[in-house]
Amino acid sequence: MTAPGLPMPVPAPGLPARVRIHEVGARDGLQNESAVVPTEVKAEFVRRLVDAGLTTVEATSFVHPKWVPQLADAEQLYPMLADLDARLPVLVPNDRGLDRALALGARRIAVFGSATESFAKANLNRTVEESLAMFTPVVARAKEEQAHVRGYLSMCFGDPWEGPVPVAQVVRVCRALLDMGCDELSLGDTIGVATPGHVQALLAALNEAGVPTDRLGVHFHDTYGQALANTLAALQHGVSTVDASAGGLGGCPYAKSATGNLATEDLVWMLHGLGIETGVDLGRLTATSGWMAGQLGRPSPSRTVRALSHKE
Amino acid sequence: MTAPGLPMPVPAPGLPARVRIHEVGARDGLQNESAVVPTEVKAEFVRRLVDAGLTTVEATSFVHPKWVPQLADAEQLYPMLADLDARLPVLVPNDRGLDRALALGARRIAVFGSATESFAKANLNRTVEESLAMFTPVVARAKEEQAHVRGYLSMCFGDPWEGPVPVAQVVRVCRALLDMGCDELSLGDTIGVATPGHVQALLAALNEAGVPTDRLGVHFHDTYGQALANTLAALQHGVSTVDASAGGLGGCPYAKSATGNLATEDLVWMLHGLGIETGVDLGRLTATSGWMAGQLGRPSPSRTVRALSHKE
Repeated sequence: MTAPGLPMPVPAPGLPARVRIHEVGARDGLQNESAVVPTEVKAEFVRRLVDAGLTTVEATSFVHPKWVPQLADAEQLYPMLADLDARLPVLVPNDRGLDRALALGARRIAVFGSATESFAKANLNRTVEESLAMFTPVVARAKEEQAHVRGYLSMCFGDPWEGPVPVAQVVRVCRALLDMGCDELSLGDTIGVATPGHVQALLAALNEAGVPTDRLGVHFHDTYGQALANTLAALQHGVSTVDASAGGLGGCPYAKSATGNLATEDLVWMLHGLGIETGVDLGRLTATSGWMAGQLGRPSPSRTVRALSHKE
Repeated sequence: MTAPGLPMPVPAPGLPARVRIHEVGARDGLQNESAVVPTEVKAEFVRRLVDAGLTTVEATSFVHPKWVPQLADAEQLYPMLADLDARLPVLVPNDRGLDRALALGARRIAVFGSATESFAKANLNRTVEESLAMFTPVVARAKEEQAHVRGYLSMCFGDPWEGPVPVAQVVRVCRALLDMGCDELSLGDTIGVATPGHVQALLAALNEAGVPTDRLGVHFHDTYGQALANTLAALQHGVSTVDASAGGLGGCPYAKSATGNLATEDLVWMLHGLGIETGVDLGRLTATSGWMAGQLGRPSPSRTVRALSHKE
């Protein structure tokens, strides 16, 4: 615990008054967990996240159960969340996934593309063009059903095989995703190598290509400790949608290929310190992440969760 | 390891071209280690830090051995570093410490004050005024000996007992330290609660009180994950001296009262990504922190050290 009144809200000029946090812990955070989490626990996790004030909580993925066994219970989980007053988007990898999501009444979906050929090949077993061709009818049909579509784009800054990713290449794939009907994009630094100047350069290049900032979210990983500094740089550019994962869930930070997501609590600490509204109750969120860490049997990698959990 | 060419240098407008890192791992980092590190290991640590390109490496503290047993070997250690081509400041808590440092030829010293009454009482057993009165003759004599004097100021943003610390209070103590002869100040966020707007507000208030930015360094702790975002905010204000600790040494991040310093590697990753010169070889620095972690028998809390240490 820390003294009351902290963080002290001191606004900085030119930042958004309010930030919408796109909470990914229940989907992106859990999908790499090898031990399958019971469906009831997942439902309780989402419920607690909403109770903590998060308004957008990505709930699950309608991916083939063979690829992500952890999320094989999407059909069971999604209806358990029907009474929650929040946006509960779901990931759909393809046409079949969209069918499943739509059949359950989901009207907020997300597709997941890659800015680089190497990752498109590794993750989707397709070229970037082939993956865009695969998404086109998915997004078109989702829009016919009045669904809101988010396009995730991974490897927007660096790629483990290709190194730095040219800004123009990212802009081209972003344009393609918007042109096929995506309502918003999430710019992913999947391996956590971005730095603040690179973030602002990509955002500026997207603006120049006709993409308004209010259709862009950012999705930073803390692999090299850069996620929050990059978030600040994005806020300074006017971005007001930020992805984060409660407790920093997602990839084990102590393991090979550490790829932890930005922890929602660390983000909220900064935003509240900047006087930016989030609607989140930090104490309740921290308690939720502490509870989930208990379910997973290991401590949260979020520094804020660790600091606030130590009663002195 | 990560792909070559990362981080990709992309400058952001208005930042300094070069940052001087004030490396505190050997002093601030080690002082809370309960198991005493052999003097030869400390000397080798400082030597490796200098070899990695760090130009300012705080070496030890001439505090009474009873208070900090870990640094009781200052008299033995300091002469072992005589051949190193770097600034090797040492902390002196009082007149007696200054005597010991000057006798060994040290001409870069640092004093350690508090912005809050609670911490002055807890750490120095004095009021803020009494501690300033104690430092005044120390700094005066150091200046007579042509020594460079750094003034550390702790609890500049928040205090565990008092909560938020008023900016005017910090400015007042900073002015007193400069007026007594300190050449530079290090603004410490000892409990890691600052956020970027607060950082910029304090820097602006100091400028208004006649303190030029080039006499200010920043010293952030990563307790709530804010250290690097706060550093970015300080750089944007023109600060070009940043304290950091190799491998994030300093307080155990997994223990009660976690107070880890900003890891030098995480800082260097951001600075190099911003195209800012540091003179540091990141690979060599990471290897040094990995070596030191081995000496201490536990992994480095630096995310960059962990990421770069995983050979894939």
